[in-house]
Amino acid sequence: MATHNGGDSNFESEQARLVGLAMQLIERRGTEVTRAILAADTQMARARIDRFFPEESDLFDAIVERWFQPLVAIMEDVLVSNLPPNRKMYEFIARRFVHQRDLYHANAASFALYCELGRSRMEEIRSYVDLADHYLAELIAQAQAEDYFPGLTIDQTLSLINQMVVGYTQPDVMMMIGERLSEQKLARIIDTLFAGLSAEDGGAAGVSGLRIA
Amino acid sequence: MATHNGGDSNFESEQARLVGLAMQLIERRGTEVTRAILAADTQMARARIDRFFPEESDLFDAIVERWFQPLVAIMEDVLVSNLPPNRKMYEFIARRFVHQRDLYHANAASFALYCELGRSRMEEIRSYVDLADHYLAELIAQAQAEDYFPGLTIDQTLSLINQMVVGYTQPDVMMMIGERLSEQKLARIIDTLFAGLSAEDGGAAGVSGLRIA
Repeated sequence: MATHNGGDSNFESEQARLVGLAMQLIERRGTEVTRAILAADTQMARARIDRFFPEESDLFDAIVERWFQPLVAIMEDVLVSNLPPNRKMYEFIARRFVHQRDLYHANAASFALYCELGRSRMEEIRSYVDLADHYLAELIAQAQAEDYFPGLTIDQTLSLINQMVVGYTQPDVMMMIGERLSEQKLARIIDTLFAGLSAEDGGAAGVSGLRIA
Repeated sequence: MATHNGGDSNFESEQARLVGLAMQLIERRGTEVTRAILAADTQMARARIDRFFPEESDLFDAIVERWFQPLVAIMEDVLVSNLPPNRKMYEFIARRFVHQRDLYHANAASFALYCELGRSRMEEIRSYVDLADHYLAELIAQAQAEDYFPGLTIDQTLSLINQMVVGYTQPDVMMMIGERLSEQKLARIIDTLFAGLSAEDGGAAGVSGLRIA
């Protein structure tokens, strides 16, 4: 007997097929897809759709999971690799950037639509953002074990790096300034981080923050 | 006799007053304001409004100019100051960030609306973006005269710095990740740039760009 939480490979492969159909439908229609729309378009009984997605949010969650699956795979591959920390940091960000840029170039309108759907359901994608932060924190810890980013906590380093590479990781920002982004520039940014990011006060802020020049 | 291109201070002050009224109207209505709407709301004759804004785009341009005026003033003040390059770079970005953050906190909805209006008229705001790039390039040249950013061209440095501080300069990105931005973090980023940004290949990209780990 099929169960909702997997364990039956026929159930899982049919569920995966429906997710694929729903995503094709999203890309074709240019709007979010509900179970009702999926049933109508595939001419499947609604009850059959509901067996695979008991709640409306189950369909959306499955789509989100499919979207992030290759990004999670990239992060995990890089994390367990034998590369030095600066190479890992670069691959960790560059591979996801290239993956997303390819999706954007393949279909800019549907890429924008997925971003919009994500923005409207921030809770659902939060766990993926948290996972990326978790992995990046692990990578930072590895780098600090080799004396990079001296004096900074992992959280401080994480926040600063996230801000400095936001164009390469956040799809919304990527769409905004995309034509100026490149792997070469990202490599230069990562090199800059590994050469210069530390707790040392270089004096940029002056002695009391914002001052009259 | 009043002329459109200024020279008459009464003309200019009335024009400025109408721009102020138009902006209040934008903030109150939450939508773009045309000359017709401005005339109706102020109960002024449309012919009088048209004397100050002969074309619809003249009103929009005047609003854009008013929006950017304090930002331009900040950039020019910092550029002619006697601060060292790292302090200049920080003040150049931090003061505009604080100005925009204040506007956002004063009225988040109308801040978002101005950003949206700007996005729909990119040609009009392009000249201000170009001016900011021009001033930042001048600042980079001053820094390079003191041996910072060795080996990089001004354009390369400009593009990399713009990417690394995009959260502090682009209002759209600021709205997205605003709660994580701070003057302290910006100072750390500027310190990192001055300590680590150069043409030297630190090895982040490896020998042949993206590779299997």
